[in-house]
Amino acid sequence: MENKIPSVLIVMGSTSDLSVMEKAAEFLNEMKIPFEIHVLSAHRTPDEAANLSRNAAQRGAKIIIAGAGGAAHLPGVLAAFTTLPVIGVPVKSSNSIDGWDSILSILQMPSGIPVATMALDGAKNAAIFATQILATSDKELQKKLIEFKNSSAKKVLEAANEIAKINKFQYKIN
Amino acid sequence: MENKIPSVLIVMGSTSDLSVMEKAAEFLNEMKIPFEIHVLSAHRTPDEAANLSRNAAQRGAKIIIAGAGGAAHLPGVLAAFTTLPVIGVPVKSSNSIDGWDSILSILQMPSGIPVATMALDGAKNAAIFATQILATSDKELQKKLIEFKNSSAKKVLEAANEIAKINKFQYKIN
Amino acid sequence: MENKIPSVLIVMGSTSDLSVMEKAAEFLNEMKIPFEIHVLSAHRTPDEAANLSRNAAQRGAKIIIAGAGGAAHLPGVLAAFTTLPVIGVPVKSSNSIDGWDSILSILQMPSGIPVATMALDGAKNAAIFATQILATSDKELQKKLIEFKNSSAKKVLEAANEIAKINKFQYKIN
Amino acid sequence: MENKIPSVLIVMGSTSDLSVMEKAAEFLNEMKIPFEIHVLSAHRTPDEAANLSRNAAQRGAKIIIAGAGGAAHLPGVLAAFTTLPVIGVPVKSSNSIDGWDSILSILQMPSGIPVATMALDGAKNAAIFATQILATSDKELQKKLIEFKNSSAKKVLEAANEIAKINKFQYKIN
Amino acid sequence: MENKIPSVLIVMGSTSDLSVMEKAAEFLNEMKIPFEIHVLSAHRTPDEAANLSRNAAQRGAKIIIAGAGGAAHLPGVLAAFTTLPVIGVPVKSSNSIDGWDSILSILQMPSGIPVATMALDGAKNAAIFATQILATSDKELQKKLIEFKNSSAKKVLEAANEIAKINKFQYKIN
Amino acid sequence: MENKIPSVLIVMGSTSDLSVMEKAAEFLNEMKIPFEIHVLSAHRTPDEAANLSRNAAQRGAKIIIAGAGGAAHLPGVLAAFTTLPVIGVPVKSSNSIDGWDSILSILQMPSGIPVATMALDGAKNAAIFATQILATSDKELQKKLIEFKNSSAKKVLEAANEIAKINKFQYKIN
Amino acid sequence: MENKIPSVLIVMGSTSDLSVMEKAAEFLNEMKIPFEIHVLSAHRTPDEAANLSRNAAQRGAKIIIAGAGGAAHLPGVLAAFTTLPVIGVPVKSSNSIDGWDSILSILQMPSGIPVATMALDGAKNAAIFATQILATSDKELQKKLIEFKNSSAKKVLEAANEIAKINKFQYKIN
Amino acid sequence: MENKIPSVLIVMGSTSDLSVMEKAAEFLNEMKIPFEIHVLSAHRTPDEAANLSRNAAQRGAKIIIAGAGGAAHLPGVLAAFTTLPVIGVPVKSSNSIDGWDSILSILQMPSGIPVATMALDGAKNAAIFATQILATSDKELQKKLIEFKNSSAKKVLEAANEIAKINKFQYKIN
Repeated sequence: MENKIPSVLIVMGSTSDLSVMEKAAEFLNEMKIPFEIHVLSAHRTPDEAANLSRNAAQRGAKIIIAGAGGAAHLPGVLAAFTTLPVIGVPVKSSNSIDGWDSILSILQMPSGIPVATMALDGAKNAAIFATQILATSDKELQKKLIEFKNSSAKKVLEAANEIAKINKFQYKIN
Repeated sequence: MENKIPSVLIVMGSTSDLSVMEKAAEFLNEMKIPFEIHVLSAHRTPDEAANLSRNAAQRGAKIIIAGAGGAAHLPGVLAAFTTLPVIGVPVKSSNSIDGWDSILSILQMPSGIPVATMALDGAKNAAIFATQILATSDKELQKKLIEFKNSSAKKVLEAANEIAKINKFQYKIN
Repeated sequence: MENKIPSVLIVMGSTSDLSVMEKAAEFLNEMKIPFEIHVLSAHRTPDEAANLSRNAAQRGAKIIIAGAGGAAHLPGVLAAFTTLPVIGVPVKSSNSIDGWDSILSILQMPSGIPVATMALDGAKNAAIFATQILATSDKELQKKLIEFKNSSAKKVLEAANEIAKINKFQYKIN
Repeated sequence: MENKIPSVLIVMGSTSDLSVMEKAAEFLNEMKIPFEIHVLSAHRTPDEAANLSRNAAQRGAKIIIAGAGGAAHLPGVLAAFTTLPVIGVPVKSSNSIDGWDSILSILQMPSGIPVATMALDGAKNAAIFATQILATSDKELQKKLIEFKNSSAKKVLEAANEIAKINKFQYKIN
Repeated sequence: MENKIPSVLIVMGSTSDLSVMEKAAEFLNEMKIPFEIHVLSAHRTPDEAANLSRNAAQRGAKIIIAGAGGAAHLPGVLAAFTTLPVIGVPVKSSNSIDGWDSILSILQMPSGIPVATMALDGAKNAAIFATQILATSDKELQKKLIEFKNSSAKKVLEAANEIAKINKFQYKIN
Repeated sequence: MENKIPSVLIVMGSTSDLSVMEKAAEFLNEMKIPFEIHVLSAHRTPDEAANLSRNAAQRGAKIIIAGAGGAAHLPGVLAAFTTLPVIGVPVKSSNSIDGWDSILSILQMPSGIPVATMALDGAKNAAIFATQILATSDKELQKKLIEFKNSSAKKVLEAANEIAKINKFQYKIN
Repeated sequence: MENKIPSVLIVMGSTSDLSVMEKAAEFLNEMKIPFEIHVLSAHRTPDEAANLSRNAAQRGAKIIIAGAGGAAHLPGVLAAFTTLPVIGVPVKSSNSIDGWDSILSILQMPSGIPVATMALDGAKNAAIFATQILATSDKELQKKLIEFKNSSAKKVLEAANEIAKINKFQYKIN
Repeated sequence: MENKIPSVLIVMGSTSDLSVMEKAAEFLNEMKIPFEIHVLSAHRTPDEAANLSRNAAQRGAKIIIAGAGGAAHLPGVLAAFTTLPVIGVPVKSSNSIDGWDSILSILQMPSGIPVATMALDGAKNAAIFATQILATSDKELQKKLIEFKNSSAKKVLEAANEIAKINKFQYKIN
């Protein structure tokens, strides 16, 4: 299994980001998209981070998802070494200022080196977006995404029905 | 020419966003990626916006780039009607609060409906990112992106050389 | 009871918003204003949300109250499909950035499509404001609002008296 | 004409707010809704401001629109003296901090005293919203609002067509 | 005792502000400055608030301290009805946005009607500042303030000494 | 004249603050309150700043008004050396971040050392507040302040009348 | 030991900052760099703070690390009295506004008086930076820093390996 | 001259930062400290940036000053490859959000990799701080810094005198 070519590399700056970033792994797993998880810091292990990104395309990877908190340079640094799409997840870590630092460090990339920024702690959305990218050339994944979309609509409507029932009792007018 | 299948739909909420969003068109044009430009408001023409997005995949489009300012709902609203990747460009329009409203309205999408957010006014990066997505299944585009990356590195190094020359004269000791 | 024409539609983007939004229901109930509660997401169930709003006036509804968190598009999206007054409640949900995203996504609507924005988590005020709207053509409701206003003034003055009494003991000179 | 009962009172804290607030007057005028314009400061003429609001309902007014900048207390102060709906317009005046002070001073009203807050400098939307309120009991106004909504959709679509035409020429692929 | 002329009126918008505002009362008590505590809302009891301020000077009061949270209009509204110095305390109440709304609503008063703003929850400093005002014409209070200043310096230096002792043990070299 | 005892010391951190701070001087001049203007930096001339403050009371000064931009330490540093009331004016200088740095550096003083913070660039209000302080023990100044308050109310009402006249013409209904 | 010349002075505004600032002491201790800890307030003990800084160079100190919260003037005030490098640590104390006040008060120093600002609560980084300064003229410290850097890289890589192992089990396809 | 060993490397992400960063060069020139200027982007020329930093110490450099705007990763990326002190200058470039992105991207570095952050556009202070670092082991530079400090104090005092003179005329009583 471990020599299967990973389509997506999930990279995070610190093990403390794992509880957020594993949401991405779970969704990819559900979609049966092969992936790898890496813990590599843009600042503490810059060479390893650079190498992972530099070699990603050659190894057959299609997309990089990178999450980090504080001065979150990881997604941008990975994007510097590849032309693969890089999806950034700002993490509201304990040392961040309510997440503003993580968001702005990932979002405000200069012209030429885009990073696709997700919502704060939006690791699941990063994986959905990665799936959407892969689905641009994979009919099977397109179907799965449509099913996923339909099922989440259904969940909202079911919840709406639950509320509607409660409403009948709560709503008292002579 | 106009019946060519567009790979990318560029949508903006108002004609006043055109000066920002045309940077996306220029890059796609340079990469010879077919695209269409649409002006559709999530609030003033919601049905047309919904229909554009709902039919995009069937028409053969692969990616939607959407730019808007203020309470920038357009990218999210388009993402609601498709499983194609949607790239959002927050526009610092005249009626926005320094761009914060545009950024947060696009970035903070709920779980299940990702929008890939670019930097404020980052329309060119949106087009580069769209190209990176298409390149995940197109070797030709991969090459073009690598050339583009190399040429922008070269431009920085040339600028560095210019500065270095100035430096020799500017830097006087004894 | 359930076929009574609702004057107010309370819509929220997620069941997690219910604990905030039920404050609106409670006040309307107290005022004996018929209402309905709906859970509909602008992003997960966009067609259902659009239809609810599109048909609201015809069904006899007068006002829509919509609450949402994060990139809170729901109030604006509902406003796109109706000319009924839409009152928006920014919800400080777990995935919002201290509420700033919810506030700006609701507040900064473009010219032509107003949403009346309440304070963060201000669902009760949304219901009071809805009542004020209905009272512009309903003498009975006007009286009720004046009574409500007087009674809340009275509560403040009673509290003031309690504090004044405490003051006598707390305030020791010589 | 001047003894006609005004349906809407437009109040602003300073004559410097007039260039923003006259957008409200223009729209009401277009809708043939009678209105008055008042310049009254919550801080410099508090008694006159209180009296205007206290007597508004008795004089037959239905709605108050109030705009102010900086520590924008005017809408809240007027709301304190009436049960009529008060619509607040935060004005980005020269002495405001990018409009944040105006927005927060108007938006964050305490429970019991709602102010319906519009976007920064959103005086036109305030007038549209006032019209929507009046239309809840006025079929004629409802029709006018639907016409207005349709015509603004049409304007967007016409602009879209213009862009589409340009697109044909701009978009060159061998 | 209660017919003693109060030098300072402490006013707060809600009993929930008492835990913050009583720090002001404690300091004034310590300085033996007569004061009164009032709970009066700028929005729920506007007439009572106006009257308290309007009559304050005539009753012999010299200074008003006013604390409020959210859209904190109370200090500004009181300042509108008097030429006594008004000291405002922004309160980080449960319904405020991290205190930013309270701060900006109090701080950004228009030209002509100053409110002296203290730090967030800075009720004790409000009382110290009130004492400094009274001390401009009261030698006795001047002395007390100097003693207070000296004693707080002393406390810091004593704490420094404690730390210095710890330091000796903590600081191990070779 | 120059040996007259100044009641108020106006201190600013840099000559570039003069255009803002001279509004304070103008008002004091109008009120015939003797004052001095000093340019002293908390960081570049710390000893001179400390000495000015330390000796202020002995020289007969009653109040210090201090304005500064950026990391605006001047008001707090002056307050450290005196028990006179210090009024701080945050200046939106060219090197400040929209004034937020100036505001927070002055506002958020620790317990024990209050600085009365005015609105951004609120130098005139600082002078009015200084006058209010002096008026707590000066009947003459009290009268002047009441006149000033009345005259600014009158100005607003006159402006209101001007607007009201315009209104008659602007407001056309059939 | 206590008469050893300290290379670094760690100063904090209040004993409540100790839990943050002792991270600096721990690192210096580990590096065997002699240091002193002082608790001195820029506002409560301004003379002692000034003297500490004024005499620091003469006593042989090379660097000052200063931490404070709220209107954090301490680092800037110390920098005013010395030409030694001053490193500032913004502390997110209980009375700060999410740390923004501490950051801006330390960061935005005027031209001429730099303070090297660290991340919020970044006391350990302050000590590392102080070590880097000392290492510019101390080969031994340079080696220690390189060892420290290598060991923190190693820790990240070990964590990466742990994650990689988990990955094998977590990652199930067919 | 050009083969002189540079003590300080000034690096900037783009030639557009030169107008800000040359203030650093000017001060170092004045202090006769040898320096080099480099234009290298963390994202466009990541290898060159890494190499510059990796080899800096070996080439004899003592300090790196790095300025960048937007998602300003350059200072942090350079710091990743060296144990030399790195001083970061957030630049308010045209594509930054009022400088907040630049500041937070530089300031909020993770534990282990400090960057000494200067004020927004504070390139001159970066050079002064670099000089202070070098002066910790260079008596000559210490003297120069003291002279510089004295001369900037003198400039403030001279300005104060100018103002004082103006004051005599401006300040008219009776």
